[in-house]
Amino acid sequence: MKVSQLLGERYKDRVADIESQNLMTRGGYIKQVGNGIYSLLPPAKRIQNKIERILREEMDLIDGQEVLFPVAMPAALWQSSGRWDSIGSELLRFKDRSGADMCLGMTHEEAAVHMANNIAGTYQKYPFMIYQIQTKFRDEPRARGGLIRVREFTMKDAYSFHTSQADLEQYYDRCYRAYERIYARAGIPEVIAVKSDSGMMGGKVSHEFMLLTDIGEDTLVICPECGYRANMEAAECIVHNEADAVLKPLQSVYTGEAKTIEDVCLLLGSKAEKSCKAVVYQRNADDSFVLIFTRGDVEVNETKLTNYLKAAVHPAVDIENANLCAGNIGPVELSAKATVLFDRSLVGATNLICGANKEACPSCHRHSIRIRRGIEVGNIFQLGRRYTEAMGMTYDDENGNRVNPIMGCYGIGVGRLMASVCEEKHDQYGPIWPITIAPWEVEICALRCDNAQVKAEAASLYDALTRRGAEVLLDDRAVSAGFMFSDADLFGCPVRVIISPKTLGRGVIELVTRDKSLKEDVALADAPARIMALIQELKDQIWAKVPESI
Amino acid sequence: MKVSQLLGERYKDRVADIESQNLMTRGGYIKQVGNGIYSLLPPAKRIQNKIERILREEMDLIDGQEVLFPVAMPAALWQSSGRWDSIGSELLRFKDRSGADMCLGMTHEEAAVHMANNIAGTYQKYPFMIYQIQTKFRDEPRARGGLIRVREFTMKDAYSFHTSQADLEQYYDRCYRAYERIYARAGIPEVIAVKSDSGMMGGKVSHEFMLLTDIGEDTLVICPECGYRANMEAAECIVHNEADAVLKPLQSVYTGEAKTIEDVCLLLGSKAEKSCKAVVYQRNADDSFVLIFTRGDVEVNETKLTNYLKAAVHPAVDIENANLCAGNIGPVELSAKATVLFDRSLVGATNLICGANKEACPSCHRHSIRIRRGIEVGNIFQLGRRYTEAMGMTYDDENGNRVNPIMGCYGIGVGRLMASVCEEKHDQYGPIWPITIAPWEVEICALRCDNAQVKAEAASLYDALTRRGAEVLLDDRAVSAGFMFSDADLFGCPVRVIISPKTLGRGVIELVTRDKSLKEDVALADAPARIMALIQELKDQIWAKVPESI
Repeated sequence: MKVSQLLGERYKDRVADIESQNLMTRGGYIKQVGNGIYSLLPPAKRIQNKIERILREEMDLIDGQEVLFPVAMPAALWQSSGRWDSIGSELLRFKDRSGADMCLGMTHEEAAVHMANNIAGTYQKYPFMIYQIQTKFRDEPRARGGLIRVREFTMKDAYSFHTSQADLEQYYDRCYRAYERIYARAGIPEVIAVKSDSGMMGGKVSHEFMLLTDIGEDTLVICPECGYRANMEAAECIVHNEADAVLKPLQSVYTGEAKTIEDVCLLLGSKAEKSCKAVVYQRNADDSFVLIFTRGDVEVNETKLTNYLKAAVHPAVDIENANLCAGNIGPVELSAKATVLFDRSLVGATNLICGANKEACPSCHRHSIRIRRGIEVGNIFQLGRRYTEAMGMTYDDENGNRVNPIMGCYGIGVGRLMASVCEEKHDQYGPIWPITIAPWEVEICALRCDNAQVKAEAASLYDALTRRGAEVLLDDRAVSAGFMFSDADLFGCPVRVIISPKTLGRGVIELVTRDKSLKEDVALADAPARIMALIQELKDQIWAKVPESI
Repeated sequence: MKVSQLLGERYKDRVADIESQNLMTRGGYIKQVGNGIYSLLPPAKRIQNKIERILREEMDLIDGQEVLFPVAMPAALWQSSGRWDSIGSELLRFKDRSGADMCLGMTHEEAAVHMANNIAGTYQKYPFMIYQIQTKFRDEPRARGGLIRVREFTMKDAYSFHTSQADLEQYYDRCYRAYERIYARAGIPEVIAVKSDSGMMGGKVSHEFMLLTDIGEDTLVICPECGYRANMEAAECIVHNEADAVLKPLQSVYTGEAKTIEDVCLLLGSKAEKSCKAVVYQRNADDSFVLIFTRGDVEVNETKLTNYLKAAVHPAVDIENANLCAGNIGPVELSAKATVLFDRSLVGATNLICGANKEACPSCHRHSIRIRRGIEVGNIFQLGRRYTEAMGMTYDDENGNRVNPIMGCYGIGVGRLMASVCEEKHDQYGPIWPITIAPWEVEICALRCDNAQVKAEAASLYDALTRRGAEVLLDDRAVSAGFMFSDADLFGCPVRVIISPKTLGRGVIELVTRDKSLKEDVALADAPARIMALIQELKDQIWAKVPESI
């Protein structure tokens, strides 16, 4: 591909805080079509195709069979599992021309059970795994960060079916390993697995695969002492409140303009953990109010709240109808039109100025716990029989009894993985794509393409590399070196070749890597072989970190 | 892949009239999820992947750049072209959680212009073509025939941009040729191109690629004399009415229970072409009525009607509100609440019993015209500036003037192409997949797999072929020969190998082709080489019919 023919422009000015969004927009990878909805331009589509290929190969290695489920599904399918009613407005519901209720798939457990139902009726057919790579839509209230959190996305989702918990667990481990291989092959072996909350998926054991980064939207609890790792949503919470010896009488204090818990504590010379804080949410379904009291230093965890209420919620927009006075909400003489919850953090607290908390690792109880931010780049769930029971999927076991199979499910968002790699592998000038997913392996920068010799040598090298199977981008534009190099930084190809009248004068091309670790002159005649060897070297570096499959 | 592990069942009983729907359902390729919505099981997904690969290769050969547009798009995008209002309810519209209007893409002209807008601002960037392979949704009122006419489908759609009509026409011809190559590579070189109506797409010149088959839902006009080929929707209509010498007075005749034009003509001893027929439609947008009078032997063409009205329509469901008396509608003393149209077929007709019509080829005027049915398996359009003008996409030409580029667009439905191949290539027992898109190239039928020698030889041949790069399905089940062979017919693999105690007794395997044209014994030792040679032979037969690209 020649840059002169490639559709896209590159831009100089920063366009977003999150680096992957900034660089992928500036580099001509993505273009926003609507809130949380993007088109992929050719370089991004090339990366996506390569990630999809890795996903296919790894899913096939663990005996996956590729299928395709629909994007738009009838309500009846989601009603059969009960999720039509239990999932909030992130499930986009609509009516077709005949008035029938439908929705856009945000996950495909129901479709997987629908497909396998009636065609896996005996135990001999188990285990099996089916997967697809398909467009999904999740009506996120807070889309952000380019491809990090979008509403429409391409996802690899896989569903396995088993006749015993032991068999599921064995397969779950194989898939866990396949995921480690996938991240390593995509160039981010740094991804770690953490225990997670199963949320709306049902089931018990689940893991999220996390790339640790400050722009991540998940909060992780990591204990360097014992190796405990969990998503904050799933982490057990240990809070100690030590009761005061003498209970003080209730006392009314005027706090003036101090409305937040911080301001009030400051005013009264108290600490946040000796206060009681009020937070108001609304249920998505009917906007009814939920008022939560927590200890002043404890944040409400929306996922735990959702799980407790069995209803999706959002922070209250306008609390007037709740009969609440913003900034002064308290548990005394309360007459709120709301469900009122008291968080466990208040258990044992007296006077609300006494007591001290100690955060500790819920596993080893030492106090070395670290809180880190992370992007979730994949997840795996042991679903159990939640879907097969609800949807009546059965098989005949060895004794002729009809039983429900046990399921696992396994997801990876393709676009988010691409953006996460960019987040992890970039410098201030652009992405540094790992060679396994780079849009092109090599970019030839032909400086002064109006020079006949430069043009001829660049074209000849382009042909030689392409014939050898390399993926080459040739910048054949009559632009300045600075302009061409800053575009090349945004393309992020791992290998760069510079051909100019100056290098040709020395009878060489200049070979550099995007990560600046290598820079050498190579004689013209040796160039194709040396470049192919470098490509292989870079691939070997990636593969060296890929664990064996099981 | 082993049949014992493959997800799916095959069925004996006919399940549908249309053969591709019947065979692909019975063969475990597709499973209906809702009205016009299907899941693809592993064999169908394998075929789809192969068709997608052919599409990618051919689009890349004509300098296409792969991109990805969204499935769900904001209304604003469709409003910018005017199609939000002009397209009927086949465009599925809905609101997201914030109440914003959105729709599901049934085609992506707007998204293509949105992507290219502002990044192709000078004439040097032209021409270029972008394409995607993506899920589309079209809310068909009459989904039918398995994958032939569905609501959700995977489509390859391509959009080219040009600076002159001549450049578009040159590219259009390249794409036309690429389409011929695609159908030939998919095993149906029988596909023909016919002139078509551009419908809602806008633009003037367009072609549909048609597979002639009785179950087709399009009607084609084909003249064997001069080669004229057109979709009935686009074919020019020539009707002659010869005026009577003397006008007769209007006369009222009681027709009793005779309501249809046929019954009335029969009753009065007249011919249909000497009568005037009334047909009532409703606009999709507001259900308002449209009353059309045609000559009794002339059918209303919905596409022409839609084009004329610039509004989508459907046959009237209930005409009570139109102030019309069903079965007695006529142009005399009419007081209908409807738009009233008189078809050109009535021009020059007098007394409505005189005159004679002659249908003739609109091109050579000879009377040899043939009417055939066909499935549309692709289309190409010269769109002109309709979208770039409406959406304000411009570039600077050589003189520095800002002008709108000229577009072409080119579509192929992947699932429909798969079903069409099945429709064209099958016998009563199952599909006969062309080797280029077959789910597997070879099926090994291991009869009596409980026999240790059969099991070992089958496994060894499976390995030998797989190592040589062949795609092999191994039926390793302990089932009868009849059962295994009828499943094999439904899998439709072009090459079949039979290994049984009987063949092993003779030291051979039996090699047959799915189309029954070849049947031979091959010595065990020669089997891998002979089978690979046969695979190549079958591929060569396909490639022999693929035209050169231009």
